[in-house]
Amino acid sequence: MTGQTRADGSLRHLLTLEGLPRTALERLLDRAQEFVCAPGARPPSSRLLAGVTVANLFTEPSTRTRVSFELAAKRLGADVVNLEVQLSSRAKGESMLDTIFTLEALHVDVFVIRDAEAGVPGLVAANVAPHVSVLSAGEGSVSHPTQGLLDALTIRQRKGRIEGLTVAIVGDIRHSRVARSAYHALTTLGVAQLRIVAPPALLPGDDEFHGCVRHADIDAGLRGADVVMMLRIQRERIQDEAQLDSADYFRAFGLTTARLRRAKPDAIVMHPQPMNRGVEIASDVADGPQSAIRDQVRNGVAVRMAVLATVARGRSGADA
Amino acid sequence: MTGQTRADGSLRHLLTLEGLPRTALERLLDRAQEFVCAPGARPPSSRLLAGVTVANLFTEPSTRTRVSFELAAKRLGADVVNLEVQLSSRAKGESMLDTIFTLEALHVDVFVIRDAEAGVPGLVAANVAPHVSVLSAGEGSVSHPTQGLLDALTIRQRKGRIEGLTVAIVGDIRHSRVARSAYHALTTLGVAQLRIVAPPALLPGDDEFHGCVRHADIDAGLRGADVVMMLRIQRERIQDEAQLDSADYFRAFGLTTARLRRAKPDAIVMHPQPMNRGVEIASDVADGPQSAIRDQVRNGVAVRMAVLATVARGRSGADA
Amino acid sequence: MTGQTRADGSLRHLLTLEGLPRTALERLLDRAQEFVCAPGARPPSSRLLAGVTVANLFTEPSTRTRVSFELAAKRLGADVVNLEVQLSSRAKGESMLDTIFTLEALHVDVFVIRDAEAGVPGLVAANVAPHVSVLSAGEGSVSHPTQGLLDALTIRQRKGRIEGLTVAIVGDIRHSRVARSAYHALTTLGVAQLRIVAPPALLPGDDEFHGCVRHADIDAGLRGADVVMMLRIQRERIQDEAQLDSADYFRAFGLTTARLRRAKPDAIVMHPQPMNRGVEIASDVADGPQSAIRDQVRNGVAVRMAVLATVARGRSGADA
Repeated sequence: MTGQTRADGSLRHLLTLEGLPRTALERLLDRAQEFVCAPGARPPSSRLLAGVTVANLFTEPSTRTRVSFELAAKRLGADVVNLEVQLSSRAKGESMLDTIFTLEALHVDVFVIRDAEAGVPGLVAANVAPHVSVLSAGEGSVSHPTQGLLDALTIRQRKGRIEGLTVAIVGDIRHSRVARSAYHALTTLGVAQLRIVAPPALLPGDDEFHGCVRHADIDAGLRGADVVMMLRIQRERIQDEAQLDSADYFRAFGLTTARLRRAKPDAIVMHPQPMNRGVEIASDVADGPQSAIRDQVRNGVAVRMAVLATVARGRSGADA
Repeated sequence: MTGQTRADGSLRHLLTLEGLPRTALERLLDRAQEFVCAPGARPPSSRLLAGVTVANLFTEPSTRTRVSFELAAKRLGADVVNLEVQLSSRAKGESMLDTIFTLEALHVDVFVIRDAEAGVPGLVAANVAPHVSVLSAGEGSVSHPTQGLLDALTIRQRKGRIEGLTVAIVGDIRHSRVARSAYHALTTLGVAQLRIVAPPALLPGDDEFHGCVRHADIDAGLRGADVVMMLRIQRERIQDEAQLDSADYFRAFGLTTARLRRAKPDAIVMHPQPMNRGVEIASDVADGPQSAIRDQVRNGVAVRMAVLATVARGRSGADA
Repeated sequence: MTGQTRADGSLRHLLTLEGLPRTALERLLDRAQEFVCAPGARPPSSRLLAGVTVANLFTEPSTRTRVSFELAAKRLGADVVNLEVQLSSRAKGESMLDTIFTLEALHVDVFVIRDAEAGVPGLVAANVAPHVSVLSAGEGSVSHPTQGLLDALTIRQRKGRIEGLTVAIVGDIRHSRVARSAYHALTTLGVAQLRIVAPPALLPGDDEFHGCVRHADIDAGLRGADVVMMLRIQRERIQDEAQLDSADYFRAFGLTTARLRRAKPDAIVMHPQPMNRGVEIASDVADGPQSAIRDQVRNGVAVRMAVLATVARGRSGADA
């Protein structure tokens, strides 16, 4: 994890969960758990990040992930600015870095970067000053580390542990940064078996997801699972690659109540959202008693608070 | 009305003024009056909503109503996030509610919803958790309750009372949520006579505005009025429906100084803005001594503070 | 100058540096210097503007100047709202002022206006209530006063003084509000010689930049300079007016290490950004030891804090 940690081993950036040691992951989950609060309870707030400035750099400003990061930062007392920018290293890497350096000179301490092309968050992280942190909020199809953390936290809350569990990820694994970050988190945290379940066209290449069990049949893939993670299907992708329409996809891979019975009776169902109800998941499953989908969202803001508090350690006047 | 109040009779949502009891309206106006401050004075601010999160869901982010709600919330110490979203129940009601549930899981306590199609604010209110409130910031042509309140407050300030007054609303009543909310507020608050004044094509159907006196002639409509509320005319509507151009409309229904003399000498002039000067109102009237138009704006932020403070009662740590 | 100061001589608006007395400029620079902090240090923050509301009115919301003003205001404790609006006096001056009056009635105390057509910030300033201030954040090609201040502050920091220096501004002077504000600031502050260096098509008319020495040759223009201020070249303008392409422009007017040797050995290089590297400036110069470009950005937020604190004097409850 060269590049994500400081010399003393503490977390400086969060670009990927790949290679993060188990203790680091568990420390983040423990800290996030402290920030979780029940629906309807007053969310925790503090001045831990007073004097710290967080810039959200999103190509599309109205996403729920942006709001999740914004609220996490505000509830810790940080100043937050939102910018809609297109970060690309392709034709104009230097001008992209000029934008970053400008914000850095305005005393931005933490950059939250979303939807830049693959490699951009790492390029930014490699160029900012030592006191500045970069958090990926989703990098191409490569990585979505806070999503991986909130998925792990949700499983730990609902099942009491991650070690020893059987987890099935179902859907467009090939193009999914969510699946990749879940793979990194859950593998490190000692999951017993991770299954990836998809039509052949949506499975990743053999050079990825080492140690995972592959299924092209959802019924086999769900059998005995403790956790079922459904992924969003992009309709345009279905038509182009798998030659299926939405109804066909639902018949072949949609999670219904009947299908969910293949999993353990106490299995939980997860989805990173937004959902296509009736395509990858039936509404009664999404809203049913086994669904942990709203827990995931709630844990998302807690995880982002934990990550911000961890990387900005020592940046704030509040704990100086 | 069912659905706007809690079991104990307190206000939970504000979707419409229709059916709100007079005491509830008066309590809101009294509370708003406490938040009013003179131009140039330091606006009141408090920590009453500390720990409360308000989400502004507007289809068009740069509206003055959005800024009014945003400042009202900030001056009460709330965290505010702005989202530009298109809420529609038509093809994707469930996905709309998924967006709401996601924000709710991020501990959004109050949703301010603008310009969704008719029915959407109520649908959201019917589905959120018990501790969550929904405020309409303008719903199709149905309702604009905070506008109705600020109009009532403005009249009460300038005329000392609402009971016994004669109020003329002039313009495109048929398509106006402002007129409907004014009708509900002023009728409940005991106005003596409410007149609706418009070309026939812009008057509402007979099943609405019960008890109002209808005028197709503005001079008759203004005669002896205490309050003249002008409505914005949408130019495209004039051409389509009434076959008048802007200059013709101004000649027939524009409020000029000469025309205003038909009303009482101390009549006040109101307009919800934005104004089309020279179409529905002459500039010298808009800026003249009888104009209460800027009072309306100032009262708008006070009314929104009062509504937020009322519905979020008990949500904040500040008064827990 | 008339119109920028209050009766007691204190600064009320900041629309231009033209005509501002030297003492006023120096007071702003001194105050800004107090807000400067080292890279990585915790930026100063205060409650000096608690209760003050600042509205950023930008035609394009995602600019670095908007973020600079937003952070400056937030770090002083102000409430900030961002609006994306097109202010134009052309066809609809009254409706533009209605927007301003509405925001004023919402208790906006300071308007920060960007990219309105020439004359708009002054028109707004002439119409707002006495307690309201207007700050230009860039007005057509006329004026960019906070940029002029930050340029002056940067020179003073790096060279210890402004008096007696030779400053060369290179590039599209004709269309540059940055050059005009630098001219006003540096002339008032006693610069020894101000040179404007550009191809003839990009030099201003003879009725402007009085007292400046004009150069059509960059090597002559740089000779012995203490400060080199490079301006952004807009590629489309090059093609239209000067019949040069970017590579030709770089050969003729681009600042390279070799060229910089014509200036004094300790000369500093400045650029208002965004830079076109390889067009008006070589990357190794932009990032080299003589570059003060990041200092300019850092000074930008300090200058904006100083200006806000100066004009909002007495508006806040914190010092009432």
